[in-house]
Amino acid sequence: MDVISVIRTKRDRGELSPEQIDWVIDAYTRGEVADEQMSALAMAILLNGMNRTEIARWTAAMIASGERMNFDSLSRPTADKHSTGGVGDKITLPLAPLVAACGAAVPQLSGRGLGHTGGTLDKLESIPGWRALLSNEEMLNVLETTGAVICAAGDGLAPADKKLYALRDVTGTVEAIPLIASSIMSKKIAEGTGSLVLDVKVGTGAFMKNIDDARELASTMVALGTDSGVKTVALLTDMSTPLGLTAGNALEVRESVEVLAGGGPADVVELTLALAHEMLDAAGIKDADPAKALADGSAMDVWRRMIAAQGGDPDATLPVAREQHVVTAPASGVLTRLDAYDIGIAAWRLGAGRARKEDPVQAGAGVELHAKPGDAVTAGQPLLTLHTDTPEKFDYALRSLDAAYDIAESGADFTANAIVLDRIA
Amino acid sequence: MDVISVIRTKRDRGELSPEQIDWVIDAYTRGEVADEQMSALAMAILLNGMNRTEIARWTAAMIASGERMNFDSLSRPTADKHSTGGVGDKITLPLAPLVAACGAAVPQLSGRGLGHTGGTLDKLESIPGWRALLSNEEMLNVLETTGAVICAAGDGLAPADKKLYALRDVTGTVEAIPLIASSIMSKKIAEGTGSLVLDVKVGTGAFMKNIDDARELASTMVALGTDSGVKTVALLTDMSTPLGLTAGNALEVRESVEVLAGGGPADVVELTLALAHEMLDAAGIKDADPAKALADGSAMDVWRRMIAAQGGDPDATLPVAREQHVVTAPASGVLTRLDAYDIGIAAWRLGAGRARKEDPVQAGAGVELHAKPGDAVTAGQPLLTLHTDTPEKFDYALRSLDAAYDIAESGADFTANAIVLDRIA
Repeated sequence: MDVISVIRTKRDRGELSPEQIDWVIDAYTRGEVADEQMSALAMAILLNGMNRTEIARWTAAMIASGERMNFDSLSRPTADKHSTGGVGDKITLPLAPLVAACGAAVPQLSGRGLGHTGGTLDKLESIPGWRALLSNEEMLNVLETTGAVICAAGDGLAPADKKLYALRDVTGTVEAIPLIASSIMSKKIAEGTGSLVLDVKVGTGAFMKNIDDARELASTMVALGTDSGVKTVALLTDMSTPLGLTAGNALEVRESVEVLAGGGPADVVELTLALAHEMLDAAGIKDADPAKALADGSAMDVWRRMIAAQGGDPDATLPVAREQHVVTAPASGVLTRLDAYDIGIAAWRLGAGRARKEDPVQAGAGVELHAKPGDAVTAGQPLLTLHTDTPEKFDYALRSLDAAYDIAESGADFTANAIVLDRIA
Repeated sequence: MDVISVIRTKRDRGELSPEQIDWVIDAYTRGEVADEQMSALAMAILLNGMNRTEIARWTAAMIASGERMNFDSLSRPTADKHSTGGVGDKITLPLAPLVAACGAAVPQLSGRGLGHTGGTLDKLESIPGWRALLSNEEMLNVLETTGAVICAAGDGLAPADKKLYALRDVTGTVEAIPLIASSIMSKKIAEGTGSLVLDVKVGTGAFMKNIDDARELASTMVALGTDSGVKTVALLTDMSTPLGLTAGNALEVRESVEVLAGGGPADVVELTLALAHEMLDAAGIKDADPAKALADGSAMDVWRRMIAAQGGDPDATLPVAREQHVVTAPASGVLTRLDAYDIGIAAWRLGAGRARKEDPVQAGAGVELHAKPGDAVTAGQPLLTLHTDTPEKFDYALRSLDAAYDIAESGADFTANAIVLDRIA
């Protein structure tokens, strides 16, 4: 087996054999196949595709590159959720304790933000004392005692994916459906969850800009999960505008706590409940009432225990950015568009995100929205508040907002996007 | 400027801007763009192509990455030749002294073999004492005093190409016409020749397996040369069967000396004369008679002086491999096919070529042919003699010959391929 023949097979639109896939993933993990060879293969896969058989084998080979966990020792059924990433997507924060409050065990092995999309761990790290890094034993312990845990995935899980993900990020090969699907699913299957709900984002602020690509990605992942014995369901959800009224780390934690307190923006509540129902259903838990668990404080109780179990103080004051800048509405009328990608870029430039893996993020930085599409606005009213510790970044962030929104004279031509666009099982 | 946006442009079938091309070649040469990024870009170029404007800029950027030589100080017009590589292609050896004997200065900056195609420097190094590595000053001196020089290209010439060529070799991105054309032409234009004749090989033993690809490569290179003020002509020539009766280093030197002595196989003589006429024409030299220069020994005189000027002994006995194995004809009839690629692989496996840049080659190894397509053969007569210092390789080499030739009962259906298939100027 040699790597050039593997690259050539895909380059020339052939199908990779199971042996080629097993070999190339293993050899790459061991360092025998070099980064420059894997990136050429990744580009060939991006441009020429892989069929379902190839994707399944590729995923299995990535799982086989590391350890497999299992949650068999837990007293409750496990339910996991994964989002493909968006702007203002803080859903994991209220959702995990909510579903735990309804009787499932919710292990959320999460990531950090890169580019314009935020990362769940970055958000939670704005809570003083909270630790993302747990041993497997600690993780199982938090999960068993509180019902939910949100932490960093250990290094032993799908190391081939870890290496390939970092490579794709610097070689323009992120946007390949076979590689995205196998990356997500290898980690989720290796993690050993019994059921999984996928939140596949569609729109300007998502990796998938159109619904056909999102549907293809979702059905690829559902098939991978199902074939591996994981009960898997996907919702396609709108990411043309930010979720909720905040994009940024501490800003999103504050909004999540509002939702857990029974309030919060309608779209965040709607999506949280929709995903909670899917997770409980996939985990086989009947007769639970997530709306009630938000209203009666039981989800908030799980949140507080979960944060405290990882060293965080749920009552601590969250960090606030040192400087604010308000963007006002240039005209009166109806806000008909507020672009998720542009807001995500602004939040990132303000310091909420990172350009390189090693970069720190600012806990308080981000963008606060004062209106959402469909809302009436008056000339001069605050539309957005930008937050940062580095005010010299305001100009740079403002440049990404030049075409971020439209205000129409009336809302006659405006139709709100549904939050949940489709369901694939 | 960032490399991911450059990769994405080509990945998404866009046209690279002059600024993108200049930047990426320069940044890659300086090491700012990493190998894994350049290989992803190379794969995107291979699969999505570059137009003529992009190729011209890419070539110019590679030239600009290093020094430019010039031959203005020479007393004669320069004529250079480049072959895209084939099996038994020893033409440079008799051609360079022949064209010099007719009045041109012939600088042949040559390479080593990699894979199944032989390298001119490897062949000449089978002559005891001969040195491939000359300083620029030595090279000009040999060229001025003998009329011809065959030596290794200096490190200062198109270093971006040197780096990219090595990368393409290990990443399955060799077979991209824009990259092949710009690689060849950047070195030839940087070298400063006044005229250039390209021998673009077509057939199983060549990189270009079909004539349409070869024509595309040839016309791309002719346009690049012409636009840079180099008088450039290309011949498309047959590489479905080996040139001459030998493939291997010392074996090919011996055959080249036969041609310089006025003998040698008809196809080698025909192609040598065709290329000589083109080179002399491109260099503006009229009324020269290459056939006479072969017959009267004047080409041989230049050869002897040229070899001696680089430390070689033109009268030395050439190395002979320690072991031989004869392949006999399994039937009587007419040899209708003898595959260049299979013979090239056999010679390579016997030790004439190298798998990695660092590997040594055997001077005596290779394949000797006792019949060519169109020749009558008798069952049991020698068809091929395999030469090697490592007889344990015979079996491995023989495996590449299983389907290397056809013998028909009669030659009724046989038509010989022309040597020169087309001319592009």
